Amino acid sequence: MRARALENPVELILKKRDGKQLSDAEIQGLIAGYLDGRVADYQMSAWLMAALLRGLDERETAALTRAMLRSGKVLGLKSVTAPKIDKHSTGGVGDKISLCLAPLVAACGVVAPMIAGRGLGHTGGTLDKLEAIPGYRVELDPRRFERVLREVGASIIGQSSDIAPADRRLYALRDVTGTVESVPLIVASILSKKLATGSDGLVLDVKVGRGAFMQDLASARELGRALVRTARRAGLATVALITDMNAPIGRSIGNALETREAIDVLHDQGPSDTRELTLVLGEEMLVLARRTSSRRAARALLERALADGSALERFARMVRAHGGDARVAEHPERLPRARVRVPLLAKHSGTLSHVDAWELGWVSVALGAGRTRAEQAVDPGAGIELCRSAGERVGRGEPLAFLCAAKRSLIDAQLGRAQAAFRVGGRLTPHELVLERLTH
Amino acid sequence: MRARALENPVELILKKRDGKQLSDAEIQGLIAGYLDGRVADYQMSAWLMAALLRGLDERETAALTRAMLRSGKVLGLKSVTAPKIDKHSTGGVGDKISLCLAPLVAACGVVAPMIAGRGLGHTGGTLDKLEAIPGYRVELDPRRFERVLREVGASIIGQSSDIAPADRRLYALRDVTGTVESVPLIVASILSKKLATGSDGLVLDVKVGRGAFMQDLASARELGRALVRTARRAGLATVALITDMNAPIGRSIGNALETREAIDVLHDQGPSDTRELTLVLGEEMLVLARRTSSRRAARALLERALADGSALERFARMVRAHGGDARVAEHPERLPRARVRVPLLAKHSGTLSHVDAWELGWVSVALGAGRTRAEQAVDPGAGIELCRSAGERVGRGEPLAFLCAAKRSLIDAQLGRAQAAFRVGGRLTPHELVLERLTH
Repeated sequence: MRARALENPVELILKKRDGKQLSDAEIQGLIAGYLDGRVADYQMSAWLMAALLRGLDERETAALTRAMLRSGKVLGLKSVTAPKIDKHSTGGVGDKISLCLAPLVAACGVVAPMIAGRGLGHTGGTLDKLEAIPGYRVELDPRRFERVLREVGASIIGQSSDIAPADRRLYALRDVTGTVESVPLIVASILSKKLATGSDGLVLDVKVGRGAFMQDLASARELGRALVRTARRAGLATVALITDMNAPIGRSIGNALETREAIDVLHDQGPSDTRELTLVLGEEMLVLARRTSSRRAARALLERALADGSALERFARMVRAHGGDARVAEHPERLPRARVRVPLLAKHSGTLSHVDAWELGWVSVALGAGRTRAEQAVDPGAGIELCRSAGERVGRGEPLAFLCAAKRSLIDAQLGRAQAAFRVGGRLTPHELVLERLTH
Repeated sequence: MRARALENPVELILKKRDGKQLSDAEIQGLIAGYLDGRVADYQMSAWLMAALLRGLDERETAALTRAMLRSGKVLGLKSVTAPKIDKHSTGGVGDKISLCLAPLVAACGVVAPMIAGRGLGHTGGTLDKLEAIPGYRVELDPRRFERVLREVGASIIGQSSDIAPADRRLYALRDVTGTVESVPLIVASILSKKLATGSDGLVLDVKVGRGAFMQDLASARELGRALVRTARRAGLATVALITDMNAPIGRSIGNALETREAIDVLHDQGPSDTRELTLVLGEEMLVLARRTSSRRAARALLERALADGSALERFARMVRAHGGDARVAEHPERLPRARVRVPLLAKHSGTLSHVDAWELGWVSVALGAGRTRAEQAVDPGAGIELCRSAGERVGRGEPLAFLCAAKRSLIDAQLGRAQAAFRVGGRLTPHELVLERLTH
């Protein structure tokens, strides 16, 4: 079947075009053929468009995930005997949760092997945030990664070239052929990388709202369900939380600013929503790892690890193991800062009814915290410090936020857009932090 | 708009993917960008798949046709003052009509400038049939083409590289990306070439049935309507006849065999269906050219040109102008013949109820009359001589047909399939030659 599939990729395109299902062997043949050049880019893009418009069913999505996973190395992590639980967020604005969550669960006896990404579009990337720490290296070879996990219990690295190479090539092709927005293709892309770490469980943070890729609950639920079902089909115990992403998470957007906030949380401080999101995701990880039998018991363990400094200590060890300056754990002022910092003042008094994560995400990118072209470097100090959250009162002339960048001109160009992202007065829409919990 | 379209081809893919309409300028930009390399093959194939699955409306189809036409040279043919009417068939089995029709209408004062094609799949190609005439050259430069049209009134040539180059590249891409079977894409491909000859009118022979690309009347009607509407939108007076293509046309399949049958028709002989199809298409051409005001009057002119030898004389002149051996007009035995000729005998007596054009088309290709790979040469002598048509009686042991090829082994390999293409006994399904006539 595999040979046949590769003899004529057009047959596989026609099958999907005409709304039929491909067999597991055909999907495996398509991906293998794409990697070895027997399926051309222009054939794969036609197939991807047909798949986007006609859909892939659960079995096909699982087969695609497996084929992409098998295109590269699967880490055994055999010497890591403690339960290994991964966490993945679909991307948001101000989402620094992984930075505090990984050392926190490690302090509670759960190993967190995470392969993280760069900023994409208006959202930040965990790797960019970690690299704000002087010296931190996100590239570890598999043996070093395994050793850090064994010794520290938490390690966050980038996707090396031998992890799911089919995903890297397919993602680049989807990006330039209008075939990104397909739930089955997104699922296969995410899970092929997650399965490669050989974790025992996965907690998904599926974000929904103005600052997320999924703007409405129905789409987020569709993605969350497809992720959970496909992951479980692949033998990975998985839970997804659908969480609100209308306003930025916490009080900071931008790499060093967010790393600092994560450190604040590890000091048992920091904004309440950042702390709460860290705790609810940590509860799921501890329960999946069978570290505790209830989420309530898990929370008690997690809160103790924040209070007694053991989570912060794990963070420092993780940073050191990655070659970074571990002194930032106690002295976050060592993190890089922007040269220019300009307040954004409220034009009238009132209650802040909306802070738009989408707009502020793009403002932060423009200030230098993100990229508009793949080859750009990010400015670790750039970003936004928020002074008020939705629901809080602000007086006229008081600062809503500080914009931080390397040059005044970068800030001036964003003042108007930033101002418009804050609505003072008007109806306050209350948002639950966790909207749904999906287990199947 | 054009510059913008080329800055980001992904936007144009997304638009079509999401079921929106592209503006004329966007379609023009897409095609121009594809030709100059700013739109990659993998982007065009994704767009083609989106267009196939989402559709193109009439305006978009017309814009695509225009953009493809404008990608190359448009022949003025200004020195040809008589009305110029083109004819196009969507392809069938035994379809040698162009060979007798072009000189026939020329003899009646209508110029026939035809750009013809090669065999495709199970169907034959007019160029391959003409090349069965010793010396006949299908490549004429535009000035020579114009001169032949001026002096003879009929010329059939191949598509030169400067006619609609976008169509040639797009067709090659569609062929390997599963994006052939789309009515708007087929329409744009056909009409971009037809418009390039600068004709005053176009008669379309849209074939339907077992031996055609369109197997049912609804599909043929959809294609015919789209062709007529798009052509009229481009200012080309057009009529389409939907004609039956269940059984082969006439009594011959294969290049020299079909050329000989066309010569028979020009001698006022030949099979009645070949003659009748030539006459009904000729009627439409004469009326479109305003040579006569009614189809009945047109038929009288055409029949006279067959009877008085003037059509045959035009054929000889056309062949001579193309460098071919014009003696074949009076001595068709000069055409190449196959070395081996084997009768296919009826296994029992009865009325022949069905002769399957699709099966015999493929048998003829396998005997050497067509290609299974683009670079193959065709055998001019190979093919099938039919001895009986559907509705006629045949006695047991009498020949149904003769199979002709260069080697006995080629014939032996096809005997079973050829036999199965003839059904003796059973219900005879009568077929009208012309099923519908579409004028808008």
